[in-house]
Amino acid sequence: MALLEGSHLLEEALALGRLPSLVVHTEHWAMRHSRQLAQLVGRCPCQPVSAAVLEVMATTVSPDGVLCTLPLEAGPPWPSAPGFLLALDRIQDPGNLGTLLRTALAAGVEGVHQGAGADPLQPKVMRSSAGAGLHLPLRRHGDLLPVLHAAQAGGMQCVAAVVHGDRSYWELDWTIPTLLLLGNEGCGIARGLSAACDRHVTVPHRPTVESLNVAVAGALLLFERLRQSR
Amino acid sequence: MALLEGSHLLEEALALGRLPSLVVHTEHWAMRHSRQLAQLVGRCPCQPVSAAVLEVMATTVSPDGVLCTLPLEAGPPWPSAPGFLLALDRIQDPGNLGTLLRTALAAGVEGVHQGAGADPLQPKVMRSSAGAGLHLPLRRHGDLLPVLHAAQAGGMQCVAAVVHGDRSYWELDWTIPTLLLLGNEGCGIARGLSAACDRHVTVPHRPTVESLNVAVAGALLLFERLRQSR
Repeated sequence: MALLEGSHLLEEALALGRLPSLVVHTEHWAMRHSRQLAQLVGRCPCQPVSAAVLEVMATTVSPDGVLCTLPLEAGPPWPSAPGFLLALDRIQDPGNLGTLLRTALAAGVEGVHQGAGADPLQPKVMRSSAGAGLHLPLRRHGDLLPVLHAAQAGGMQCVAAVVHGDRSYWELDWTIPTLLLLGNEGCGIARGLSAACDRHVTVPHRPTVESLNVAVAGALLLFERLRQSR
Repeated sequence: MALLEGSHLLEEALALGRLPSLVVHTEHWAMRHSRQLAQLVGRCPCQPVSAAVLEVMATTVSPDGVLCTLPLEAGPPWPSAPGFLLALDRIQDPGNLGTLLRTALAAGVEGVHQGAGADPLQPKVMRSSAGAGLHLPLRRHGDLLPVLHAAQAGGMQCVAAVVHGDRSYWELDWTIPTLLLLGNEGCGIARGLSAACDRHVTVPHRPTVESLNVAVAGALLLFERLRQSR
């Protein structure tokens, strides 16, 4: 069960045909969102509460008058022959994870494998992903190594994002079926996983900066595929 | 005066030859950072405090045993004939601003013009910029329009990042002197500023996502110049 906070995430869920198991809203929200409320009444329990009650239930500072719980059984189906996958090795920061999911969806990623790290269904991730986590097929794993092997067996190249790589990210051919692997904010990709990858790419940058934020580096790599495909 | 929290930011300041006006640290930090402390003792006041006192003074949850205040008179000098500038129109979120500064420095930006928005010297920006704000010449303005005109008079192209633009960002020649303008998270670039720009570029993406995070879109544009220059 995921907790979605705010009108935008509720709307995303409804647009995807996903029905909340409970909607909690203020009277003020109901007045301004009669169309959204009409879609819900009779199909799931809608509970009006005071602003004070809503504020206590929400993890957001200003939750915009509505929150809902969403059953997770019916996530989007995993693609049968994916051309672009993202694998995340222990991404810890909820903001980074949310931004990566949003960027991945925008760049055409078809599914995300997650090895440990932050819970993708927590409200902070939902917010920074702007609901992308609801659109993206997502699988969680204890170990990503079998995932890499399965992708390779299916004809995909596995590309590791590393600090010192064989080549700059724009020197790789991204137009063939690709799994991109990104690593933890502090320690990068686990050695065994990196060794299992076919290609190792890096983002060249000025040495004044020690490293890039993982969501920024990830965005550059994810969009390079889109750039090369046009 | 800026408040820097944690060993990493203190080290950045020292590496830049910037001396804090006050260093406050725990005994435990002093034991583990004797080399850093030796650089400071006798040159600025260093005040040992208990972990409880440090925690109260810091805005970070786990401040790693040290914080310092830094006078701001001696920022880095503005470049005389810049080839790459960034202008930010009302960036509100401290995390976005910090990430943009860090990415800008990594991509070779020589100076940043800021029109309103979040305070670049607040601890949250310092942290997410990983100290990039100390390296980058930074100017704050009430109105960015004279900044754009001055850049154009100096022979720079002014490029606005917009949702629907004339062209994809990789179709622009970024290798000539360029000022890139990014806008507010919610409402983008103010109309008058956008109209004053020479070029309008966009980041094409899948329609499932309404928009990209501004720090992500900014990173793609900032690094496109670096990619084209190689």
